[in-house]
Amino acid sequence: MGYTLKRGLMYRMPTHFGPACGPRRGPEGRNQFLGKDTRSENRVVAVSFLTNPDQLEAMIPEGVGLELGKEPVVTVSVTYMKGILWLAGRGYNMLGVTFPVIFKGKKDRAEGSFLTVLWENLTDAIVTGREELGFSKIYAELPEPELFPDKVHCTAGWLGFTFFDMVVEGLKPLSSQELKSATGLRGSGDGLIHYKYMPRTGVWGTPEVSCVTLTPMRVGGPPAKKEGWKGQGKIAFHRATWEDMPTEYMIVNAFCDLEIKEYRDAYMLRTEGGTVDDLSDTHILQ
Amino acid sequence: MGYTLKRGLMYRMPTHFGPACGPRRGPEGRNQFLGKDTRSENRVVAVSFLTNPDQLEAMIPEGVGLELGKEPVVTVSVTYMKGILWLAGRGYNMLGVTFPVIFKGKKDRAEGSFLTVLWENLTDAIVTGREELGFSKIYAELPEPELFPDKVHCTAGWLGFTFFDMVVEGLKPLSSQELKSATGLRGSGDGLIHYKYMPRTGVWGTPEVSCVTLTPMRVGGPPAKKEGWKGQGKIAFHRATWEDMPTEYMIVNAFCDLEIKEYRDAYMLRTEGGTVDDLSDTHILQ
Amino acid sequence: MGYTLKRGLMYRMPTHFGPACGPRRGPEGRNQFLGKDTRSENRVVAVSFLTNPDQLEAMIPEGVGLELGKEPVVTVSVTYMKGILWLAGRGYNMLGVTFPVIFKGKKDRAEGSFLTVLWENLTDAIVTGREELGFSKIYAELPEPELFPDKVHCTAGWLGFTFFDMVVEGLKPLSSQELKSATGLRGSGDGLIHYKYMPRTGVWGTPEVSCVTLTPMRVGGPPAKKEGWKGQGKIAFHRATWEDMPTEYMIVNAFCDLEIKEYRDAYMLRTEGGTVDDLSDTHILQ
Amino acid sequence: MGYTLKRGLMYRMPTHFGPACGPRRGPEGRNQFLGKDTRSENRVVAVSFLTNPDQLEAMIPEGVGLELGKEPVVTVSVTYMKGILWLAGRGYNMLGVTFPVIFKGKKDRAEGSFLTVLWENLTDAIVTGREELGFSKIYAELPEPELFPDKVHCTAGWLGFTFFDMVVEGLKPLSSQELKSATGLRGSGDGLIHYKYMPRTGVWGTPEVSCVTLTPMRVGGPPAKKEGWKGQGKIAFHRATWEDMPTEYMIVNAFCDLEIKEYRDAYMLRTEGGTVDDLSDTHILQ
Repeated sequence: MGYTLKRGLMYRMPTHFGPACGPRRGPEGRNQFLGKDTRSENRVVAVSFLTNPDQLEAMIPEGVGLELGKEPVVTVSVTYMKGILWLAGRGYNMLGVTFPVIFKGKKDRAEGSFLTVLWENLTDAIVTGREELGFSKIYAELPEPELFPDKVHCTAGWLGFTFFDMVVEGLKPLSSQELKSATGLRGSGDGLIHYKYMPRTGVWGTPEVSCVTLTPMRVGGPPAKKEGWKGQGKIAFHRATWEDMPTEYMIVNAFCDLEIKEYRDAYMLRTEGGTVDDLSDTHILQ
Repeated sequence: MGYTLKRGLMYRMPTHFGPACGPRRGPEGRNQFLGKDTRSENRVVAVSFLTNPDQLEAMIPEGVGLELGKEPVVTVSVTYMKGILWLAGRGYNMLGVTFPVIFKGKKDRAEGSFLTVLWENLTDAIVTGREELGFSKIYAELPEPELFPDKVHCTAGWLGFTFFDMVVEGLKPLSSQELKSATGLRGSGDGLIHYKYMPRTGVWGTPEVSCVTLTPMRVGGPPAKKEGWKGQGKIAFHRATWEDMPTEYMIVNAFCDLEIKEYRDAYMLRTEGGTVDDLSDTHILQ
Repeated sequence: MGYTLKRGLMYRMPTHFGPACGPRRGPEGRNQFLGKDTRSENRVVAVSFLTNPDQLEAMIPEGVGLELGKEPVVTVSVTYMKGILWLAGRGYNMLGVTFPVIFKGKKDRAEGSFLTVLWENLTDAIVTGREELGFSKIYAELPEPELFPDKVHCTAGWLGFTFFDMVVEGLKPLSSQELKSATGLRGSGDGLIHYKYMPRTGVWGTPEVSCVTLTPMRVGGPPAKKEGWKGQGKIAFHRATWEDMPTEYMIVNAFCDLEIKEYRDAYMLRTEGGTVDDLSDTHILQ
Repeated sequence: MGYTLKRGLMYRMPTHFGPACGPRRGPEGRNQFLGKDTRSENRVVAVSFLTNPDQLEAMIPEGVGLELGKEPVVTVSVTYMKGILWLAGRGYNMLGVTFPVIFKGKKDRAEGSFLTVLWENLTDAIVTGREELGFSKIYAELPEPELFPDKVHCTAGWLGFTFFDMVVEGLKPLSSQELKSATGLRGSGDGLIHYKYMPRTGVWGTPEVSCVTLTPMRVGGPPAKKEGWKGQGKIAFHRATWEDMPTEYMIVNAFCDLEIKEYRDAYMLRTEGGTVDDLSDTHILQ
């Protein structure tokens, strides 16, 4: 008399009300949004810097096939998205920190950007991303950036504690060549690389799921419009106590401690339209 | 050179910054908050009603050992919490829907309240509850209730769409006997029962985790203060389109369709102080 | 020993900390932002309809020189603004309802759009607009619009109660001629017309200020970029009880009751950049 | 054909939809809430300190009859209110800074607490308070306090910038005598004293309204329940740039600069129930 979970249909908790709707499944079924045209409006503000490779290695889990990639360059990017189809035209924002890694598994090999953490301001996106894809998504307040004629200022907070500031100053239009190569969070190489971990209930400290996942680079069409600016970038994470951020202070403080040897690229991109990539090609690396 | 996940320490994604802090682990280690005194202030507003058992059975997953309990009585409760230690004194709110079930497994047997869904207004609590405990937590806006001399009105929404209203009218103090037996979300019998489900990345429609979990009834000490009122209760879920609530419309609509044969108890409880129960006795039923 | 309010400097309560900063005064003095270049990004979504002139006349205060203008056409517009200089690059949103009026005073004569109400989602803008300009600004939640390939959907709420929906469907680019003539809230004719009223403390029901004010049409330069679409528009105000909106229910209900005889123009505009108009040419009509 | 503003009925902009509802007028008319029973729940956390009298004098407008009162003691209080009748059972929070002043006018004489600024987190309350009463209300985010067994921590922010922290530590119950004399924001002496200022549209830098107002001490009945704790208090205002708080930085910085010679009382009060005082006895002092 109860309900059966149908093989092949996507579910998330609570499973009792039918298959779940989300980025990779709409009310009409799987991949409903994949490849569809949108009126999306996105902005990415990103700053990169050269750091100490030892500090990055300390952020890579051992024994899962991951190692540091070529250059110890960290990219911090904030993305502001509107017109998302799976959210019925709404949007949300995200702040990610990546660096290059190489995966050498028993079967697979990949080079890409390791997504150490991705703060987002919408629970629904956080939950689907963690459980379906293995993205290390956690919550932050991510207000719209402050826009000046020659400057953009991005911030992030948690229940009122501002833990992050990023400024790109002296904004000048990207050349068409620079514009072509500039990308958002999806990064370079084979794509975004994640370490997925889910705890086992009641056996505290034991994983139920532990694997590396890959979100391949988008190979779909370009956005309908794209424009960009470059400038001088700067970032600052602000040291937090446990009382300031009782669930995230150690993450913020690790980035406070991260050496900034030299700033690299800093840019702002705006894109509009284009077709949906629902990330459903994300898979476990072995 | 990378980091090692230490057995016995609790982790959540991102695992790269050390063990996770949350309800069951503070900066000083596991069960840091368990049994500690608090200055917490909680309010529960709850309404029960008799419904059609066939409709409840349709919400129970088959083949996992669960079946409908004695009486098809649904309890809808909203809980407003302040002074939570693991959040460094902050609070959050939750809206849960439960009904009695029996678990008959190969090894275990339990009777308790099936937590079909628990809306919460804090991502951090949602993520730990889903991944560590198997609670079916999802996001909602849960503003403070509207308090009148003889009435309380609770609402819940998602990005501005109000999907739920609950009123308890004609409030009169509970007798000391009623007060003693009145409880919050933890429910009756052996405790709260959950169906935990986690999808496998890339093999869409296949579970990585699928099990029943139990959060035992609190046997710890009582709150320092407790007072309560009863009245005539009424609830209403408001039908939603996919555009209104693209990730939750099917959940809300299932409760819209649920027959209300007869209202039962309706009360408001306020408690203060007492010691922390961190729910770390939650475990998988087999 | 106390401080003196210096003539000619702009003040708002509290006056004890020096002249006020706001749209018409920055830390460097009056008109600091007027005429400055910006990186602003604005969107206007507007729908007009023909209504019953008797209902509009009932919204015009008597004895102050105002009368209904040529055609009883109401325009409801929602404006989403980013990159505002006086807010140090932040933004806010507004929902206004206007119709044509004529002012015939002892000295002045003006034709323009009567701003019956302007909901905004930022207190700072509301307070300066009411006190300095006489705009009838009140508070609303105004989330970013939902954007679809061929449709835009705007909503407004007050503490969770959604009192307004507007849809423009079948979006098609405006011709360059239509684009040139399409404007935002500033309206047509001589500008925006307001009735400013401030109560006298303690003598309840007596005005301290009662006058008509005019915000002249912008004659400044155009935005750096402008694009637009037209479509079929629809609006709906949702009837509210005092309990739903204890300070605004009568306003919302008046618009619920307003007859929609025939929809007219419906469009979405996006503009970027351009120079600041700080509305400091707003003045009292006599 | 237009509408007439009826003498004696209370109005606020927009006046076009009938008399305004607010604290002093409900849908059934003036003083609808005055003296009514409530289920209100309020918390006040307050810290006082001795400061430099010259700094306080610099915050008093000259030539309006105000001078510094006996002792240069500043009280900073945060009030968290729930179950407010005029908001149909909702609540809001406020942060006020007061010190003793004396008013010596042509006709009136009063001693009381000068309300230099009152931050609130609800626009509706800000607008009615400014325009009807002359309270220097401006906007702040005022999240619920962080509650620990022996400590309470209050914060205030503006669009994510935390400008204020207050802690009261070592909490111990007040004696019944202390409890009786402890009060909320209404202060001591004859009541709360304000300087009301409204600018004249178009004649920038000229007041339309400039007067001193008094909100007399509540003489009504006590709350149904009252409990309190005292401890060691500390406050900190955090220096802001114009970019951090473009409309309020000068206010926050004035309090940053205010000398703290010695902390005085620090307490937390909780009250419940009692009858409504709608502050309609506020009047202009002459």
